Amino acid sequence: MRAGVLHPDLSVGTETRRSPRLARGDVLVEVRTVGVCGSDTHYLRHGRIGDHVVDAPLVLGHEASGVIVAVGDGVSPNRVGERVSIEPQRPDPTTAETKRGDYHLCPHMEFYATPPIDGAFAEYVTIGADFAHPVPPEVSDEAAALFEPLCVGIAALRKAAVAAGDSILIAGAGPIGLMIAQVARASGLARIVISEPDEQRRQRATDFGASHAIAPGEDTDPVDAFVDASGVAAAVRDGMTRVRPGGHVVLVGMGSDTMELPVTLIQNRELVVTGVFRYSNTWPTALALVRTGAVDLDAMVTARFGLDELTDALNADLRPGNIKAVVYPGISEWRAADQQTGEARR
Amino acid sequence: MRAGVLHPDLSVGTETRRSPRLARGDVLVEVRTVGVCGSDTHYLRHGRIGDHVVDAPLVLGHEASGVIVAVGDGVSPNRVGERVSIEPQRPDPTTAETKRGDYHLCPHMEFYATPPIDGAFAEYVTIGADFAHPVPPEVSDEAAALFEPLCVGIAALRKAAVAAGDSILIAGAGPIGLMIAQVARASGLARIVISEPDEQRRQRATDFGASHAIAPGEDTDPVDAFVDASGVAAAVRDGMTRVRPGGHVVLVGMGSDTMELPVTLIQNRELVVTGVFRYSNTWPTALALVRTGAVDLDAMVTARFGLDELTDALNADLRPGNIKAVVYPGISEWRAADQQTGEARR
Amino acid sequence: MRAGVLHPDLSVGTETRRSPRLARGDVLVEVRTVGVCGSDTHYLRHGRIGDHVVDAPLVLGHEASGVIVAVGDGVSPNRVGERVSIEPQRPDPTTAETKRGDYHLCPHMEFYATPPIDGAFAEYVTIGADFAHPVPPEVSDEAAALFEPLCVGIAALRKAAVAAGDSILIAGAGPIGLMIAQVARASGLARIVISEPDEQRRQRATDFGASHAIAPGEDTDPVDAFVDASGVAAAVRDGMTRVRPGGHVVLVGMGSDTMELPVTLIQNRELVVTGVFRYSNTWPTALALVRTGAVDLDAMVTARFGLDELTDALNADLRPGNIKAVVYPGISEWRAADQQTGEARR
Amino acid sequence: MRAGVLHPDLSVGTETRRSPRLARGDVLVEVRTVGVCGSDTHYLRHGRIGDHVVDAPLVLGHEASGVIVAVGDGVSPNRVGERVSIEPQRPDPTTAETKRGDYHLCPHMEFYATPPIDGAFAEYVTIGADFAHPVPPEVSDEAAALFEPLCVGIAALRKAAVAAGDSILIAGAGPIGLMIAQVARASGLARIVISEPDEQRRQRATDFGASHAIAPGEDTDPVDAFVDASGVAAAVRDGMTRVRPGGHVVLVGMGSDTMELPVTLIQNRELVVTGVFRYSNTWPTALALVRTGAVDLDAMVTARFGLDELTDALNADLRPGNIKAVVYPGISEWRAADQQTGEARR
Repeated sequence: MRAGVLHPDLSVGTETRRSPRLARGDVLVEVRTVGVCGSDTHYLRHGRIGDHVVDAPLVLGHEASGVIVAVGDGVSPNRVGERVSIEPQRPDPTTAETKRGDYHLCPHMEFYATPPIDGAFAEYVTIGADFAHPVPPEVSDEAAALFEPLCVGIAALRKAAVAAGDSILIAGAGPIGLMIAQVARASGLARIVISEPDEQRRQRATDFGASHAIAPGEDTDPVDAFVDASGVAAAVRDGMTRVRPGGHVVLVGMGSDTMELPVTLIQNRELVVTGVFRYSNTWPTALALVRTGAVDLDAMVTARFGLDELTDALNADLRPGNIKAVVYPGISEWRAADQQTGEARR
Repeated sequence: MRAGVLHPDLSVGTETRRSPRLARGDVLVEVRTVGVCGSDTHYLRHGRIGDHVVDAPLVLGHEASGVIVAVGDGVSPNRVGERVSIEPQRPDPTTAETKRGDYHLCPHMEFYATPPIDGAFAEYVTIGADFAHPVPPEVSDEAAALFEPLCVGIAALRKAAVAAGDSILIAGAGPIGLMIAQVARASGLARIVISEPDEQRRQRATDFGASHAIAPGEDTDPVDAFVDASGVAAAVRDGMTRVRPGGHVVLVGMGSDTMELPVTLIQNRELVVTGVFRYSNTWPTALALVRTGAVDLDAMVTARFGLDELTDALNADLRPGNIKAVVYPGISEWRAADQQTGEARR
Repeated sequence: MRAGVLHPDLSVGTETRRSPRLARGDVLVEVRTVGVCGSDTHYLRHGRIGDHVVDAPLVLGHEASGVIVAVGDGVSPNRVGERVSIEPQRPDPTTAETKRGDYHLCPHMEFYATPPIDGAFAEYVTIGADFAHPVPPEVSDEAAALFEPLCVGIAALRKAAVAAGDSILIAGAGPIGLMIAQVARASGLARIVISEPDEQRRQRATDFGASHAIAPGEDTDPVDAFVDASGVAAAVRDGMTRVRPGGHVVLVGMGSDTMELPVTLIQNRELVVTGVFRYSNTWPTALALVRTGAVDLDAMVTARFGLDELTDALNADLRPGNIKAVVYPGISEWRAADQQTGEARR
Repeated sequence: MRAGVLHPDLSVGTETRRSPRLARGDVLVEVRTVGVCGSDTHYLRHGRIGDHVVDAPLVLGHEASGVIVAVGDGVSPNRVGERVSIEPQRPDPTTAETKRGDYHLCPHMEFYATPPIDGAFAEYVTIGADFAHPVPPEVSDEAAALFEPLCVGIAALRKAAVAAGDSILIAGAGPIGLMIAQVARASGLARIVISEPDEQRRQRATDFGASHAIAPGEDTDPVDAFVDASGVAAAVRDGMTRVRPGGHVVLVGMGSDTMELPVTLIQNRELVVTGVFRYSNTWPTALALVRTGAVDLDAMVTARFGLDELTDALNADLRPGNIKAVVYPGISEWRAADQQTGEARR
């Protein structure tokens, strides 16, 4: 099969590789669409995220949809032909974290595109059958790929401990900030404030759920919860000051490893501060929200690429107005393919 | 002032009474609109609800809106002129229940229209200043009156422990069932099933939030939670069988004091069964949901009456197609008044 | 190997069977001690529990300890020789219930001694490696076997939602009632009331954690939570009336499938009623409580039997003063063996 | 009456003041015993805590017991003569925080010994009747005074979200650290590790509940929760690294307003970080724990002073081996009084 590979010297190339082998309980998925995440781009530019270092060739990509083409032992052959959204994690079912329902915190996790585990910028991938979530025809391939970042938003909203009628502040109107805003809107929050320095991004924030878009530091009434999707220490500190006593603060954006935080404020207001690493048990929620139209993922795709254009795809964040770029690993070049692939997107 | 009074012999009449006296911390409200609740009708027909017996003349009505016309000591005089939705409870701030945030469970509660406490079918009422919740111009008097039954729906949804994308079954498409459905829709639930024997009511249920309306006993997929708004034992038992393991069951409808319940089912699925008595800390949520248009209360008002038509108002549930009747205590007869009062409704 | 078998005609006999085969991820355990549970006795006397019918020969027993003697693929061979307490369940790791941490509610569960799954009154059993929990030398074989009923008590206390200083009422001073009382004491509850008709059982209840033992119907102050370990409808109804507003009710005892329950009371006090089926993630807690001496399981063993005495063991509940009987499947007759087996108990 | 007063120039003196006037709902308490808190000492040395500045004469002291000697309107005269433990807060019952049960977060709070509100180093104080908690004869005056710091420990344990059998790390073996350890022990925690640089304090920690006392940085197994009672940034950072994924971190100790915290760690482990400001609904728990002997407050009193010795009392933290100093405002000098006051302590 063909796969897009990042090398330790940070070069990217398309290679022919052996297709992954099917293990018991797994399915083999022909990949249709893969979203580009900021972490993919970070690996391209820096060769590492924290302790995870690209010291051997690595296939990136962890936001993927596709079609099941073969199944391993123990999986119903009826699943062949199913269109699926891939939840890109392989937790160990025997650890304490997994057994208490936090499988995403499993210390033995194997996660797509996290060294040394390959990801989905490839023609085929395997995944546990219960992590290949079927999607109905009304969900497009691109939307099915973007369930993954949507699930980050779902996980964040759960931790924000808010309900219909409540208010939230979100720092950052990048893709994840917009996902959080969409989930907040779908959950009936009454006031959804996005704080974002870029004016163009502020404008589009209101298309994706924000009721108010403000510049950092601008005034706003206190909120029930604050979610940081910026990774910027100043935004985190500012956001914390906006939260009512007893409210929740959820740190999603990745920034520096440590931050100077207002401990006395956390104490005096008894704020509850936590972070989102990944997600557990969110795919059924994602499907329900997309299927009912409460969340719109299709409108977030702003650029499409074939596998040979992977470097461009990984750098699409530099284009003005970009939200999410997606890659079609089964296509060499999107532009050439564009005409024929109306169907591929769906 | 004039007040509509229910007598122990179950006769209803309009009387002239002394206006209530303002105590410290209270406000005096000129009542605009009062919703008729099934419990008001129950008192009319049976003279009692459980241990609460109408053994002295009683003013009914506990779903009220109005305008503050005077304030007691300790309340800002700036509040005079405020349009308010009344939360009709007076808990004792010193009890354990109130202090832990369950003020509606306070054993010393004084609640409107619960003997011997008078209610709101009267020109004036008093209430604690913090239980007179200001409403903005875009909320009508009628909607402000119906915050009270909406709050029953909000309380029910909180106890149902569901979130955006989840599913719920509601038994009964009466006013409370519809309120619950509206809150469920506002909260982003993806599948909202109402079970109701009456075909006309099933049809209107979908206008107020239900995604599916079924006849009792009809098949439906398992749900994350079940809320009974019927008070019918068979509906409660049936509803419990539809809930997924670990799901919640909330009993809101009032029926017989005891019911034969499926204990083994509760155990084998570890269902969490609870009830809604009243509500605490729900008015801000009600305001947010009405203000954003997520919940439509105006469309639920199907009949209007003046104070002299109180018996008709209390019996309005017998009219086909009735959802909520409202009374205007400042008006003798609605029909005569109808022309002049376009403004009164808003 | 030898195994004690219950036949569909309700006869019990010792048979020679093929030892179970080791699957991937499993361990083979030489059984040391097995507690007799009321459900084992129920199968002996009635041939069924609910829908579970003994229509083929069945090995009973699900409270077991032993020593690992072999391991399947994927399990560290270093585990051979480990003394373990067996958690007798095999959930399917791919179901929604398991993935959210409620693996005991998994619809594909295979549980020891529940037809058609064999249990532990046998010389050897297999179990998933992560369900064979190692115990240190200071925990006896008998105590390790009784982790299972202790875990029912732990699950019940978790659902009772109480903490140090709170109060609880427990109906029934049978083995499970005493387990719950012990966990309540270990958790620092200040008032632990056991309601029990039998005077001898009331007396011993105070040895195992109860601060007060009352006869059914006797007065007691309101409690924060009520746990039924009797399965008697009258006890359940009475217990519910003792709980403070907002308190929890946990139904553990197995009785008739349905019960007439006080619905108005559940509503007016907003009681939270739930049941305990089995348990998830409780073994580490059980080990911690036994190891520190906070819970005493050894003192609960009142009778010991060899495998050929299985019928006597299953009927030990008829002996006055019995709490828990245990079976040693590796021994034919306990009395003969008694002298040599001082070491076996440990 | 006589009162010990801290002046803006940080001098301390005993003055004769008018006794406080009884308002409706209040009780007048003749103070028996008052604990000295680190915050009292902080005011003495620095004249401020955060935004609270001693810019007018202030009576310190907020850990108090006494006897009700008069009652205001609305309070039962039967309460005169009651021995009480004082919960030194006056929340406003009408705020959102109070109404949802977090009355300690009430923005209109009046709290003893927090400028400009006077505290309890005085012969008489007033407090809301429901904040004067009766204590039985078996609780000494000194213990009743120390309910207040005990309640900080109770609040911390609640936020730590641990249960019997779990493990905890506490940084700091000062009075609050020891209170937390005592509550942890009373709650059945199996491993209670205190980290403390001072060897003498480490030794005594094990007397008050710690199962292990380690020097900062010393190795220990991962814990379910970490509570900081040191206020030292290095201890907070170190403690966070010891917590299992999904575990809780509770910041109780007061240090600098901001701290450099490990944000990536909070995210990757999804730690839940919060603070304790004060406490709500803890006095009944405190009483239960002291009454059953689960918590020993008497043993924590290491020095006693009369009102004229207030400066010495406030500086008692400098004495080696000191845990808690208490002041008897009704006595001029403890040493002279010592002989006659055996009874006063009880």
